[in-house]
Amino acid sequence: MLLYEQLAGELRGQIARGGLRAGERLPSIRQLAHGHGVSAATAVQACFQLEREGLVVARPRSGYYVRAAVPPPPVARPPRRRVPGAVSNPALENVLDMLSRSDVLPLHSATPAPALLPQAALTAALARSLRHQPAAALDYSPPQGLPALRRQIARRYAQLGAAVSPDEIVITAGAMEGITLALRALTAPGDVVMVETPSYHGILQAVAALRLKVLEVPNLPGRGIDVPRLDQLLQQHRVRAAVLVPNFNNPLGSLTDDAAKQALLASCTRHGTVVIEDDIYGDLAWSGERPSPLCRWDTQGAVISCGSFSKTLSPGLRLGWLAGGAWTDALVRAKYFSTVGSASLPQLAMAEYLQKHDLERHLRRLRRTLADNAQRLHEAIARHWPAGTRASEPRGGLSLWLQLPEGGEGYALFEAALAQGIGTSPGVLFSSRGDYADCLRLSCGLPWSPRLDQALKRLGQLAARQLA
Amino acid sequence: MLLYEQLAGELRGQIARGGLRAGERLPSIRQLAHGHGVSAATAVQACFQLEREGLVVARPRSGYYVRAAVPPPPVARPPRRRVPGAVSNPALENVLDMLSRSDVLPLHSATPAPALLPQAALTAALARSLRHQPAAALDYSPPQGLPALRRQIARRYAQLGAAVSPDEIVITAGAMEGITLALRALTAPGDVVMVETPSYHGILQAVAALRLKVLEVPNLPGRGIDVPRLDQLLQQHRVRAAVLVPNFNNPLGSLTDDAAKQALLASCTRHGTVVIEDDIYGDLAWSGERPSPLCRWDTQGAVISCGSFSKTLSPGLRLGWLAGGAWTDALVRAKYFSTVGSASLPQLAMAEYLQKHDLERHLRRLRRTLADNAQRLHEAIARHWPAGTRASEPRGGLSLWLQLPEGGEGYALFEAALAQGIGTSPGVLFSSRGDYADCLRLSCGLPWSPRLDQALKRLGQLAARQLA
Repeated sequence: MLLYEQLAGELRGQIARGGLRAGERLPSIRQLAHGHGVSAATAVQACFQLEREGLVVARPRSGYYVRAAVPPPPVARPPRRRVPGAVSNPALENVLDMLSRSDVLPLHSATPAPALLPQAALTAALARSLRHQPAAALDYSPPQGLPALRRQIARRYAQLGAAVSPDEIVITAGAMEGITLALRALTAPGDVVMVETPSYHGILQAVAALRLKVLEVPNLPGRGIDVPRLDQLLQQHRVRAAVLVPNFNNPLGSLTDDAAKQALLASCTRHGTVVIEDDIYGDLAWSGERPSPLCRWDTQGAVISCGSFSKTLSPGLRLGWLAGGAWTDALVRAKYFSTVGSASLPQLAMAEYLQKHDLERHLRRLRRTLADNAQRLHEAIARHWPAGTRASEPRGGLSLWLQLPEGGEGYALFEAALAQGIGTSPGVLFSSRGDYADCLRLSCGLPWSPRLDQALKRLGQLAARQLA
Repeated sequence: MLLYEQLAGELRGQIARGGLRAGERLPSIRQLAHGHGVSAATAVQACFQLEREGLVVARPRSGYYVRAAVPPPPVARPPRRRVPGAVSNPALENVLDMLSRSDVLPLHSATPAPALLPQAALTAALARSLRHQPAAALDYSPPQGLPALRRQIARRYAQLGAAVSPDEIVITAGAMEGITLALRALTAPGDVVMVETPSYHGILQAVAALRLKVLEVPNLPGRGIDVPRLDQLLQQHRVRAAVLVPNFNNPLGSLTDDAAKQALLASCTRHGTVVIEDDIYGDLAWSGERPSPLCRWDTQGAVISCGSFSKTLSPGLRLGWLAGGAWTDALVRAKYFSTVGSASLPQLAMAEYLQKHDLERHLRRLRRTLADNAQRLHEAIARHWPAGTRASEPRGGLSLWLQLPEGGEGYALFEAALAQGIGTSPGVLFSSRGDYADCLRLSCGLPWSPRLDQALKRLGQLAARQLA
């Protein structure tokens, strides 16, 4: 047995016996090395080993901690809706009032807090663009978007192994406009569109606004899109388009793996269903391994891929894009006749930022912070929430999905929390007809703080009160 | 007879006898005073008198010119479409390819050239907003828009005598998004919507994209919306909404007067038709008298008013607004579920610009330039185009509408001009089913230049060739 394995074994034993308790900090590398008479490199290797086993977690600039008891994962349940139908969910109508309160702790918002984004580099890029290209900054952009930015986005697709030309990129006001434009280009009112369940409420509202019928395919905790079920549904129903989030579904954070993605694409291609891929969380893989976008395997023109800078660089610049393939012309027309074009200055600045800065370096730091936040959320839930509360184990993205124990009610908890200045997203928002009444979504995008810690304790108390 | 009347009479005689010819410059004030032995003040008064009579025109920093022969006004013709129906105009499908060429002289674009806009003040406002509010500039704006900008817009409505609260303002990506959101909030596919004829092609495309039926009410050259006809149509058909441009219709530039506006509003209110007022040209009254928006007289909540900064300050910032009245909540929801919100930095900067700068001063200069351009366009057309070419006499806005003599074909002329690097908008674009084949729209928004003068001469030759 190697030295580091011996040390790992000793620490494992201490954890098992309760000598090192959940949430407790391990001795520092120097203390471990000194105390056990090994080199620092060996101590580091031992910690790596325990981290691989999931027994400890690393926190940047702090050390290793014994991993707390983790809440059990959510249980998948088949959706109530079995046939295509209109979106009918009264909670969706009220979502805006519920979510637009600015005086609450924004645990409801699946967005990284401003402090986690490269504000200085972006404002510098904006200022430079203004100085060097004032006329272009104030004049119309072409409806399709500025070529310099489209080139940068195409370059990024190339890094991911997807052959996307700048000519196929259409700049949008974030991914929501992208999804709306794609649905407008592909569908007519009354058409059936497949969505995931649970699914981001904005997607459901976009589908409802265009008067489309929905058919729900489960996205399974820890596994991603239920591809056999998807194939079954496509055999049974004529589905024009499917809005899917293979990479880190919002709210579950689950990843559909490469094999499942390819099976999914084959099924959709076979049935003539166009996939509108919402890939806005793909860059936020907490492991650091960026999963492929679905469009990478698309050889038949069966995918329109949507991306956005809102979740990685700046939500307020309102910049996203579509990789439109064969539909590019139709998408540009839909853009021109709804918003004419995107604002020019943000496009100039984003193109410059992407050219001059190391996006990967920023993403590495952001991903680590999000993963660390999720870990702390898990621990707080295991510690402070009623026994039996389940939580997703996201592999990326910005949110955590909770299932309350029997008797728990997500909407009531959302209301009670709001009254105390804590924003949450009730589970019913994530279904086309009111499933997930016992669920809640929380954001992983807030920097950790005592206020946040207190809020999670408070939420746990409110949840416990429901069961009493 | 007063001295200035004597001098005016002498000049009038010279013009009538051909001693001073069309387009020729009058002697300067000093020359007139010296030559006729009168004071400079008297010479100025004489010129004012001739300007009032329409015999001469003033050109800023240049002097008075004998007004050229003016082309006759267009003839109103009833639209071919008499009952509601789908937009069916193949030319509309191609408009984007036709209009997106960036290498042409943009006589097709109803936008002021960048040189006519306050670029320095706007870039300074953008830079200041970045410096002082970097976090707000990069973070989400509320879906309804930033309160500071909504307050500035409400203040402007107050100056126009319209009581609009900041709470009723919804910030949009220009007026096109405003019209689309209003139509989405008010209508369902298959509903009938009234539009003007001729009408801006963007409005027609927005209506078509939402699968609405159109009913056309004439906008008459020199007179504006045909209100008796509008009333008749509303009696005959159930019309959910009417997208109207009472102030300087695009393409005609005609103004619907206050009495007609009030009659129109009464008729729409009586028939339960909501007016979506497109008021983006209201600030560009060439006389300087800003006509009232329709919403000023709206007491029943029958008007949604759309505005934009694209035609007066900057098209590239993509900022417009809706005054939504009773529909405000529905409009905010439609905005949230299509583009989430408008970009923050442009909103911050525009609010600051409006607070710190004298918008009226900029508008005065812009209006004078546009009116002067239109005058020169008129003269060039009278001089270089085939006899019988008719041209609108706009009272504001950014465009001139031409009717070619018998045998002239707007689309062919558009194509021939494009081949020579000159952009124009063919008349067929401005109808829901291909009326106006003999018409053409030109922009008044380009600063006068020898290149522009040459282009107009060339266009006249191409038009003449069609008749040969």
